[in-house]
Amino acid sequence: MRNLAELPAVEIAYLCDLRREALDPVSRRYPGIPCSTNLEAVLGDSSVDAVVIATPVSTHHSLALGALAAGKHVFVEKPLAASSVQARQLMEVAKRQDLVLMPGHTFLYSPPVTAIKRLIDEDELGDIFFISTSRVNLGVHQPDVSVVWDLAPHDFSILRYWLEESPMQVSALSRSCMLPGVPDVAFIDLTYPSGTIANVELSWLAPSKLRRTAIIGSKRMVVYDDTSTESVRVFDSGASLPDPESFGEYRFSYRTGDIVSPRIEATEPLSIELSEFFSAIVNRTPLVSSPEMGLDVIRMMEAVDSSLASGGHPVSLDGESLPMQSLDQALSVSAAR
Amino acid sequence: MRNLAELPAVEIAYLCDLRREALDPVSRRYPGIPCSTNLEAVLGDSSVDAVVIATPVSTHHSLALGALAAGKHVFVEKPLAASSVQARQLMEVAKRQDLVLMPGHTFLYSPPVTAIKRLIDEDELGDIFFISTSRVNLGVHQPDVSVVWDLAPHDFSILRYWLEESPMQVSALSRSCMLPGVPDVAFIDLTYPSGTIANVELSWLAPSKLRRTAIIGSKRMVVYDDTSTESVRVFDSGASLPDPESFGEYRFSYRTGDIVSPRIEATEPLSIELSEFFSAIVNRTPLVSSPEMGLDVIRMMEAVDSSLASGGHPVSLDGESLPMQSLDQALSVSAAR
Amino acid sequence: MRNLAELPAVEIAYLCDLRREALDPVSRRYPGIPCSTNLEAVLGDSSVDAVVIATPVSTHHSLALGALAAGKHVFVEKPLAASSVQARQLMEVAKRQDLVLMPGHTFLYSPPVTAIKRLIDEDELGDIFFISTSRVNLGVHQPDVSVVWDLAPHDFSILRYWLEESPMQVSALSRSCMLPGVPDVAFIDLTYPSGTIANVELSWLAPSKLRRTAIIGSKRMVVYDDTSTESVRVFDSGASLPDPESFGEYRFSYRTGDIVSPRIEATEPLSIELSEFFSAIVNRTPLVSSPEMGLDVIRMMEAVDSSLASGGHPVSLDGESLPMQSLDQALSVSAAR
Amino acid sequence: MRNLAELPAVEIAYLCDLRREALDPVSRRYPGIPCSTNLEAVLGDSSVDAVVIATPVSTHHSLALGALAAGKHVFVEKPLAASSVQARQLMEVAKRQDLVLMPGHTFLYSPPVTAIKRLIDEDELGDIFFISTSRVNLGVHQPDVSVVWDLAPHDFSILRYWLEESPMQVSALSRSCMLPGVPDVAFIDLTYPSGTIANVELSWLAPSKLRRTAIIGSKRMVVYDDTSTESVRVFDSGASLPDPESFGEYRFSYRTGDIVSPRIEATEPLSIELSEFFSAIVNRTPLVSSPEMGLDVIRMMEAVDSSLASGGHPVSLDGESLPMQSLDQALSVSAAR
Repeated sequence: MRNLAELPAVEIAYLCDLRREALDPVSRRYPGIPCSTNLEAVLGDSSVDAVVIATPVSTHHSLALGALAAGKHVFVEKPLAASSVQARQLMEVAKRQDLVLMPGHTFLYSPPVTAIKRLIDEDELGDIFFISTSRVNLGVHQPDVSVVWDLAPHDFSILRYWLEESPMQVSALSRSCMLPGVPDVAFIDLTYPSGTIANVELSWLAPSKLRRTAIIGSKRMVVYDDTSTESVRVFDSGASLPDPESFGEYRFSYRTGDIVSPRIEATEPLSIELSEFFSAIVNRTPLVSSPEMGLDVIRMMEAVDSSLASGGHPVSLDGESLPMQSLDQALSVSAAR
Repeated sequence: MRNLAELPAVEIAYLCDLRREALDPVSRRYPGIPCSTNLEAVLGDSSVDAVVIATPVSTHHSLALGALAAGKHVFVEKPLAASSVQARQLMEVAKRQDLVLMPGHTFLYSPPVTAIKRLIDEDELGDIFFISTSRVNLGVHQPDVSVVWDLAPHDFSILRYWLEESPMQVSALSRSCMLPGVPDVAFIDLTYPSGTIANVELSWLAPSKLRRTAIIGSKRMVVYDDTSTESVRVFDSGASLPDPESFGEYRFSYRTGDIVSPRIEATEPLSIELSEFFSAIVNRTPLVSSPEMGLDVIRMMEAVDSSLASGGHPVSLDGESLPMQSLDQALSVSAAR
Repeated sequence: MRNLAELPAVEIAYLCDLRREALDPVSRRYPGIPCSTNLEAVLGDSSVDAVVIATPVSTHHSLALGALAAGKHVFVEKPLAASSVQARQLMEVAKRQDLVLMPGHTFLYSPPVTAIKRLIDEDELGDIFFISTSRVNLGVHQPDVSVVWDLAPHDFSILRYWLEESPMQVSALSRSCMLPGVPDVAFIDLTYPSGTIANVELSWLAPSKLRRTAIIGSKRMVVYDDTSTESVRVFDSGASLPDPESFGEYRFSYRTGDIVSPRIEATEPLSIELSEFFSAIVNRTPLVSSPEMGLDVIRMMEAVDSSLASGGHPVSLDGESLPMQSLDQALSVSAAR
Repeated sequence: MRNLAELPAVEIAYLCDLRREALDPVSRRYPGIPCSTNLEAVLGDSSVDAVVIATPVSTHHSLALGALAAGKHVFVEKPLAASSVQARQLMEVAKRQDLVLMPGHTFLYSPPVTAIKRLIDEDELGDIFFISTSRVNLGVHQPDVSVVWDLAPHDFSILRYWLEESPMQVSALSRSCMLPGVPDVAFIDLTYPSGTIANVELSWLAPSKLRRTAIIGSKRMVVYDDTSTESVRVFDSGASLPDPESFGEYRFSYRTGDIVSPRIEATEPLSIELSEFFSAIVNRTPLVSSPEMGLDVIRMMEAVDSSLASGGHPVSLDGESLPMQSLDQALSVSAAR
């Protein structure tokens, strides 16, 4: 509400929630905005151009579908839907109706994430050897989804944005510590066609909030820590093979060079994201957090669920179990394609 | 040498290395100690009671075997040998000869590790839900072994010491970033019969040295950071189901309580470890870093290698591939046994 | 505005600013609240019970005086006024009119500050040997006051709240780095009758925001860091004279014990402070941030200015230069009184 | 001993201590080196060229004087002597005898300190506005000297090395918390002719070891933290007057730019320092830690003691009380000279 209210091009027509008691505190802060518990009336109002949906995951598909059917542009909080089937249907309807459909992967508009994207695009990091990330949201337990569906959309969307590829192999281990059947900790391994590998740790149970991502490149390394005042740190350190001639001896030269914390603008990601949504409606400009991004993130989470269901075996992005073979073989096959 | 020289009950008979040039700098510091490049002469000296072996992993088996055959008690740097077959042979010979055989899992004598062991034994942490650990030794590349064989012995021995159980399922993902065929980063998932799961990240390539282990228990959580002046921190925070009556609603109550950094003695682990070795020779006292511990650690590393060879599929501690089933099923089977 | 709007017992009658353009952005957020650029009209409205003044320091006195004269209870942002003469006049008028006058020393309602006050009151820290504090507000340069008048009210009010005494000696060193005559860095030394000494560092120029206060007690030490998630840390470490018998030998026994970060509630200080203001109006309950507190803080700042004007000589709280004598002598005199 | 033993150009002739029991543990580590409790015999040995004195401060003068009288070059641990009178006498004798006399201000050879000296010399920092430094050596209480004489030599020598000037005004506040008459905490203010001011906090009582120095320059700021793996951090942040035209409006533009932790070599300062001592003996090369440096440091400590004795009044480097005047006046006088 605050971000929408501050966008000059936007006029908020309704604040809608089925629960009257949920409307009251917001209404108190924004007394000028009409409230409603009647979704049909809102969707039936022809002066409404777009709908922003921030509801539990299980309702995303039906709410977004209803809004699209009523001819409204739709912004949905991440994940886009509760399954890839649902996501594909929303995408088809949106395309048919020529409407903007945008999943809310807000981290793609976060200044540290875009700063790292620039470093990668400008080849400052070299080849990305591997990425290790830990995301712990202490105290924010979602009742209706696992920790994977709650937190992985952040990391999976960021990885896809940075790497511009989807993993060819996904495996995972999780545990339902507090409630049977609701994983609250998960360790996820990802293997990408380029050779990059990633380890994603997600948890609702941890000593303290943790959001730390290490990106290990052949040229430089980066640590992205969303809880630090120095959110991006670039390390000019690493190992190199100094002399190709003496390759047979496998000698390494280790450098530990300067460490730079570049200045990162303090802009609010949600504000940029919503601006992009409204710009796409008016100007048909492309979305960074596109529906294709949203679909890929869901496919990754479905692959995690498939791996978990199989007892931790690696699966493809389509959820198919992968044969027993080494990564080298897999990469050879991938390269041969 | 320094630790041995400072043990009052020990007299150093020889400093032995095949490379004369390796002896010189040590000899300069310890001018009173005879040096030798002739191992057979050393082993043939009947006044020598025990041998301490600190050499590349590939030589552990033959050197230890030779020393045991010569009737010497043997301390070998971790890992005990390059394979479980070799380790079992050393254990048999030592047992037959009634000699002490001790692998050098020094971290088991580290004050923070033993302090956490006490917390676990006194049930201060409750059930251990999961353990997440990262170990990065920047700039210490071992030419003859993978990062798993170089660094995992530390974490695997610590986990076995704390948990007093061996994992029933091991899976891993690694990459050889710098040299073909020499993994220098690995992510390892472990599942224990009790339900505890663990994620072990090992790397020679990282922005900075990192040794961080989080132990998430049902009562308390602990962070063990070997690079910090506060190496052990106990967090009285976590989630609980406050009211069994309302279980159906899945409401959580999150506490974030006090954080305590207990005082940890600053004693040198290697000194305690070597004392235990010599005490075992004289008094037959039991070893914390026992040969059985050493064997189990090797079996875990072999399981990691098996999983890596299969493309990341989960394997048992015997290296056998596990069927496709969920962890719940696996735990049921385990519980039924 | 936000805090006032959320207090159930408060109805905001006006938002008043002489600059129309300053009203617009706030008005956009709180569309239901009448705006005015006419202060006299506001003060003339008999339905208005109290006025909250958040303006430049130089205007505090005249605005507060006008409001008191109009029979309104007055809350003034710190410092209460630009001089002790002004502050005393406001206090007299408020007393005569039986109106509440409250300076906004918000830090006195900050949970870490009150937690430390409890530790002191319960004698957990023992005698307070000394306090060392650094406050750096990078990037918030006040055009009309020195760094002392901008930042010292925070530390001076906290010290008075904790120690419940006023300093008997004040000396200071400052520099006007950026603009002639506007000190932007200051180092202040305080000596209290109890023997406690304090060093206060204030600056607008620093590498990074810093708010760190160390309280060294005879029993325990505390670090208060307002920028940390662990804002209060209690150290069970220190030095003690183990044996009074061997006092002559001056041997010390150093302990480094546990470190505890107690759980601190996350309540908003300004909200508590404003609640206390309105409670004082209705129930005549006493104020922690009392006008006497506000006056003492101003007297301390005036003493700092006196010391600075004299070239760094120590002065009393009345700004009088102190004779050349040692602290021991001074304390003897103080004790003898 | 270790550093001396590793210098190739040095042969250790004697290890001398009046306490036989102090010799034993060192002798155990360096069995080849002759020990002696007879200082006269050592000084009488004509094959001895130089003497390294590491004893309590009160003995520095007589021991160094005896060694110089015997024609030996002398290295004395900091401070050079217990008073400026003593230091001047040692300097005269050394000069007359044409012998090297070197005080052991080891920090002047510390890589972070020399790296910052380079930044200053290359005008990377601009004018040095002020320096704020905290040095806390928890648990190392010296029985015979105050915290000022124990710790200030480090900071005072570093300041003189960086700034290449001596303070014209010194004031101090201290307290003897643990033992009467032995200050164990001190806050020292320094004013330099160039306008730079400095605040030095010294303490034996603190929650944790602290060695943090902030150098605020007109161009850049530096934080030097000797306890951190990133010992030097350069901040490209600060305030500037963007437009001289609008000077009257006193508007500031605050930048917060990149932060760089330059790579600092890991060399041992004591080794470099001793090399310089022996090089000065052989080649008459100049000393960074010169006797003049040693004298100035002592004069600064004597000024601190004078200020403390006067009750905190500012004194000159000669210990003379300064008249009551503002710093601006003092600087004008200084500039006029």
